[in-house]
Amino acid sequence: MSMFTIPAVDNRRAGEIQQHIDIKTKPIGSLGQLEEIAKQIALIQQSEVITVKKPTMLVFAADHGIAEQGVSIAPSAVTTQMVKNFLNGGAAINCFCRTNGLDLYIIDAGIKNPIVHHPDLIDKRISCGTQDFTKAPAMSLEQVEQSLSNGASVVERCYISGSNLVAFGEMGIGNTSSASAIVAASLGIPSDDCVGLGTGITQEQLTKKKALIAQALELHAEQLTNPMNILAHLGGFEIAQIVGGMLHAAQNQMLILVDGFISTAAALIATKINPNCRDYMFFCHHSEESGHSIVLEHLNARPILDLGMRLGEGTGAALALPIIRSACDFYTNMSTFADAGVLV
Amino acid sequence: MSMFTIPAVDNRRAGEIQQHIDIKTKPIGSLGQLEEIAKQIALIQQSEVITVKKPTMLVFAADHGIAEQGVSIAPSAVTTQMVKNFLNGGAAINCFCRTNGLDLYIIDAGIKNPIVHHPDLIDKRISCGTQDFTKAPAMSLEQVEQSLSNGASVVERCYISGSNLVAFGEMGIGNTSSASAIVAASLGIPSDDCVGLGTGITQEQLTKKKALIAQALELHAEQLTNPMNILAHLGGFEIAQIVGGMLHAAQNQMLILVDGFISTAAALIATKINPNCRDYMFFCHHSEESGHSIVLEHLNARPILDLGMRLGEGTGAALALPIIRSACDFYTNMSTFADAGVLV
Repeated sequence: MSMFTIPAVDNRRAGEIQQHIDIKTKPIGSLGQLEEIAKQIALIQQSEVITVKKPTMLVFAADHGIAEQGVSIAPSAVTTQMVKNFLNGGAAINCFCRTNGLDLYIIDAGIKNPIVHHPDLIDKRISCGTQDFTKAPAMSLEQVEQSLSNGASVVERCYISGSNLVAFGEMGIGNTSSASAIVAASLGIPSDDCVGLGTGITQEQLTKKKALIAQALELHAEQLTNPMNILAHLGGFEIAQIVGGMLHAAQNQMLILVDGFISTAAALIATKINPNCRDYMFFCHHSEESGHSIVLEHLNARPILDLGMRLGEGTGAALALPIIRSACDFYTNMSTFADAGVLV
Repeated sequence: MSMFTIPAVDNRRAGEIQQHIDIKTKPIGSLGQLEEIAKQIALIQQSEVITVKKPTMLVFAADHGIAEQGVSIAPSAVTTQMVKNFLNGGAAINCFCRTNGLDLYIIDAGIKNPIVHHPDLIDKRISCGTQDFTKAPAMSLEQVEQSLSNGASVVERCYISGSNLVAFGEMGIGNTSSASAIVAASLGIPSDDCVGLGTGITQEQLTKKKALIAQALELHAEQLTNPMNILAHLGGFEIAQIVGGMLHAAQNQMLILVDGFISTAAALIATKINPNCRDYMFFCHHSEESGHSIVLEHLNARPILDLGMRLGEGTGAALALPIIRSACDFYTNMSTFADAGVLV
């Protein structure tokens, strides 16, 4: 995608940044993963003062044709109901954004039953849900391009308002099926290895879900040759908009918080489109969904949290934000041995 | 210790509390460990509105006679220097308390080189460090009792000021040696299994540390018959004050945040003195220190975070607070399926 020009982080200051961490009043390496987070942010921001500004959670919602096959715990109608719940402030992601200080925006990327004229809903609808990808391509290539562009425009709005951190969450009944298929196709691995229980289906549903996804991958096998085609054939609108949002965030050197399995599948596609965007990504929660570990390993990512959650919505990313903030604070404000007169 | 009267939490409402969680707009169980945290707080607070009020970090500092044997990365003088660093706001724990909204108090429980008349230092000194427990008892039984009472008085002050959550951190060169010995003696396991690298000693130092602790446990073997005697023989003052603080917090039905290995060793002793205090404890960080896993398993505890840290000071507890707050928020404020008109 020539539309995204993403600089790799400049690693020339890596040694200096490590030194800046090692002279702080603590044993070398004793802040563990927080040191890795601080180092990554310092490489992105290239400053001795690293910060999180106007952290923003974007929850992209869309529906999936495959949901009609009964591979989820709920029908597509629940996507719209949950979007209303988000808009009313009642869902888990609302609670976690309030508690942890993130601005929250909800984007309709293509839910089945649209919500008419709600002032707080960002309308980026592509269509009333994707096609059932077990029978046909989920969307057209034009719809993929429109989705990337829509996601980028939402992030652009955050960037212009002064945000330097965007977190990506999602809602969409059926979207673990789409994410599993995307991961299998992108990594060239058997789909059974990355199909899981979603938010909690039965073993019988799982068997059906595995068979359907394997069948879809066979149906589209010849077309799954690049990330754009993978998105077009396997969906979904919210995943494609997240991909566009992540690429645009990286282009603007913003910090990208990746939530659970679906958000990580989008991150995988984004890195296939432009590998440099990996430098800006922070993986926030190790989902219970089987398949997540496989993608994380491929992306050389160790998530910040592992709280046994399997909800999505961006919940893991919202919960990880205080740790990102704490990493910025110690890097920027903690005393050095020289400052403090400590003799170690 | 008859001085602590701790009610076990009343489990009669456990089913009702689970029901309160299960009717929230999310798949059953999908918030993982946050649901467990919310349930525990609801059992303690016995209310549909669960909250964190004036969360307070208490960092107890003291010195250890065993430090003279060179089993740490730094000499005892560093304890005092780090206490000054805490008082000046420059240490990791200062950063993490600021970022995550905890009040921070530093307690001198018995550092070697006292700091004269600093307005922000809480003076609960027992002595200029413990005796070297490889040669003699670390302290007298009277000093243990005074330590418990001192720790309780610090927590009482928090309670009176309106806090319902105390986190326990520590600073004391040599205190992983004391904590390892306490854990081995309390659980009746070989000390080699619970002696580790502390904040980062060499393999040579580790060999010496293991030998010294094994020798100390043999020296005092006949006296290590109950938790008070274990504290007296193996130390230290900060650990004993934390034990007293935890017991007093539980008595007042406050939430207790347990940090890493040292704080967990204190928690173990507190539960041996009064098992009911376990009901009030939240284990915050899985330390890199070997031996921590053993105690956690014994206490049936799964820590909230695992960030590869090995610093102490209460850093893990400060970082876990936002997750505790988020659990309170979802339990108290999240919509139910009925509220939101969601059909699952």
